[in-house]
Amino acid sequence: MKKVAVDAMGGDFAPLEIVMGAILAVRDFHIPVVLVGDSERIRKILADNGEESNPLIEVHHASQVIEMGEHPGMAFRRKKDASVSVGARLVKSGECGSLVAPGSTGAAVTAGLLGIGRIKGIERPAIVTPIPNEKGGHTFLIDSGASANAKAKNLLQNALLGYNYAKRVRHIAEPKVGLLNIGAESTKGSTEATEAYELLSKQTWFPFAGNCEGRDIPTGKFDVVVTDGFTGNVVLKFGEGLGQLFVTMIKDAANRGGITAKLGALLLKPALKKYMMKKLDYEEEGGAPLLGINGTLIISHGASRRRAIRNAVRLASQVAEERIPDIVRETLQEELKD
Amino acid sequence: MKKVAVDAMGGDFAPLEIVMGAILAVRDFHIPVVLVGDSERIRKILADNGEESNPLIEVHHASQVIEMGEHPGMAFRRKKDASVSVGARLVKSGECGSLVAPGSTGAAVTAGLLGIGRIKGIERPAIVTPIPNEKGGHTFLIDSGASANAKAKNLLQNALLGYNYAKRVRHIAEPKVGLLNIGAESTKGSTEATEAYELLSKQTWFPFAGNCEGRDIPTGKFDVVVTDGFTGNVVLKFGEGLGQLFVTMIKDAANRGGITAKLGALLLKPALKKYMMKKLDYEEEGGAPLLGINGTLIISHGASRRRAIRNAVRLASQVAEERIPDIVRETLQEELKD
Repeated sequence: MKKVAVDAMGGDFAPLEIVMGAILAVRDFHIPVVLVGDSERIRKILADNGEESNPLIEVHHASQVIEMGEHPGMAFRRKKDASVSVGARLVKSGECGSLVAPGSTGAAVTAGLLGIGRIKGIERPAIVTPIPNEKGGHTFLIDSGASANAKAKNLLQNALLGYNYAKRVRHIAEPKVGLLNIGAESTKGSTEATEAYELLSKQTWFPFAGNCEGRDIPTGKFDVVVTDGFTGNVVLKFGEGLGQLFVTMIKDAANRGGITAKLGALLLKPALKKYMMKKLDYEEEGGAPLLGINGTLIISHGASRRRAIRNAVRLASQVAEERIPDIVRETLQEELKD
Repeated sequence: MKKVAVDAMGGDFAPLEIVMGAILAVRDFHIPVVLVGDSERIRKILADNGEESNPLIEVHHASQVIEMGEHPGMAFRRKKDASVSVGARLVKSGECGSLVAPGSTGAAVTAGLLGIGRIKGIERPAIVTPIPNEKGGHTFLIDSGASANAKAKNLLQNALLGYNYAKRVRHIAEPKVGLLNIGAESTKGSTEATEAYELLSKQTWFPFAGNCEGRDIPTGKFDVVVTDGFTGNVVLKFGEGLGQLFVTMIKDAANRGGITAKLGALLLKPALKKYMMKKLDYEEEGGAPLLGINGTLIISHGASRRRAIRNAVRLASQVAEERIPDIVRETLQEELKD
C-alpha cells in the first residue's frame, strides 16, 4: 500500500485533530502515513498518544503554512516550504501515493496544479463531490469548485474524470453521465452548456445520458453530473444551507405545534439521526478528490476533525489504488491517435 | 385597479383550472380580469360557474396556443394569434396592466420580450423568485431562468431590478443586495462575477452588500441575491429536488425506526404541514414576475391549478401598481445624464 501524505498544518484544528485523524487511519486501516508540517509539534502529539515509534507513521518537516486568507497562487510561489506544497512534492516524487489537504480549497488546488501537475490533455482540475440521492446512493457532482470558469471542452474533460471516478473508485458498473443544464432539450442553456452537449454527444469514451436539470441532481437519475466549478460550488453550498434551513423549519414546527408536535419530534429524532443524518454527514466521506492531476489529492473541509481526517486518509488510499490519472491519460492518447 | 390579462390556454390544466383561478381572484380580491384564449371554451366554464355576466370578467378571443414543446421564438413569430402573444399585446397597448402566463417559461419570456418590450437600458429580462429563509421571510433570487448567458452589466441590471422589486413590491425598507459567488472575497469567482462585483461596488443606486455564497441564500443575510439565469435556474430546481429528497429521507427514517419513530412522525406531521409546508408551497405565491420589460408579466408553473392562478392574479395586480418599469427607467436615465 502506498503512503498517504497528510498536511498536518491545514484547517482550523491543526495540528492536533489532523494528527489524531491520521493516527486513527493507521490504527483502523493500517494505512502508512507521512505527516507533513512542524515536526516538533507533530512528534509531541504522537508521543502523547504513544505512537512515536509506530513504523506506519513518518514525520516530514515543513517550516511554513499557507493561511486561509492568503492568495493561493502567490502564497504557493512565496512559501516553498509550506506543508501543503511539501506534501504535493512527496506525491510528485512518488514517495507518497496521495495527499490529504485540509483547509483552504484554493491552496490545495494550487498545490495540486503546480506541485503535482496536470494530466496531459486535461486543462483544468476538477473537484468531485458526492450528493446523497433518492435511491439511497450518491450522485457525483464534478466540478464542485476547482475552476470558476469553464469552456465546453473543460466540461467534456470533467465528464471523463467523473465517469472514471464513479466507475473505478465507486464501482458503479456503467455510470450515467449527465450535463447540468436548465432544460432537457439539447438546444437549451448557456453557450458553454449547449456546446458541451454537442461534444458529449459525439465522444465515444462513455454513453452520454443527456441534460440533467437541477431538480434531477438528487433523484439518482444520473450517477455523475457535470458542471463548471462556479455552478457546482454554488449548488453544493446551497445544499448545505438548505439542509440547515430544513432542520430549523422542523424544529420551529415542533415548537409551535404544541405538546403533541414536541412529543412527535422527540420520538422521531433517534431515527432521523440514525438513518438520515448519517447520509448527510460530510465527515463520513472526509474530503473530496481533486481530479485531473498526476496523482491523488483529497481536499478536506477547513473545519475537519479527527474522524473526517481518518476517513479522508482512507479515501486517499482507495483513490490512489485505482490509478485514474493513468487511465485518463490513455483514453486521451487514444483519442489523439485517431 | 388595472385589469389583469390571463392566458387561459397556458399550462397543463388549461383552460379549466386557469379560468377557475381567475374566477377566484375576482371573487376574493375584486380584481378585474381579461381571459385570453378560446372564447367558446372559456365562456362555457364561466357559464357553468354562474359567472357569464360578471362585469369584472371579460373574454378576449385568441385562436392559437403555444405548446410546451415548441421553440418559443419561432412559435411567437409564427403564431400571431397565440393566447400568450395576444395577452402581451393587451399589456403593451395599456388595456391591461399585467399578464399572467402559465406554462412554458420560454414562451412567456419571449412574449414579454417581443410582445411587451424591454425597458430602455435593460438588455435582458430577469425572473425574480422568492426562496424561504431562516428569518421566516424570503430571499429574492434574480435571475432564476430568463437569460441563460449573462455578462457583468446584465448582473448589475438584475441587481437594480431585484432591489426595486424587494423595496416596492415586498416593502423591505432597505433591501440588502448580494452577488451570488463562490467566496466572500471580491477577487473570487468567474470572470463575470468578479467584473460584476466591481460594477456593483461602484454604482450609487443602492448599497451593495457583497458576495453571497450558496449557503447564504437561505440564511436571510441578503434580501436580494443576484445571479445569471443559468445558475439561478439550477439553484431553484435543485432546491425543489432537495426538498423532495428530505421528505423521502424523513419518511424512510420513520419507516425504518420502528413503532416509536412511526408514532413520532404521525404526531409531528400536522405541525409540519401547518408551519413548514406552507412556506415551501409555490402555489401561495402563484408565479414569478419577469422584470426588465415595459409592463408586468407573471410566469406561472405549467402544473398550476386554480389556487396558484388566483394568487398569481393577485401578485400581478400588486406588481403592476408599483410601476417598477417607470422607476427603473428613471434611475437609468439619471445615470446616463451624469
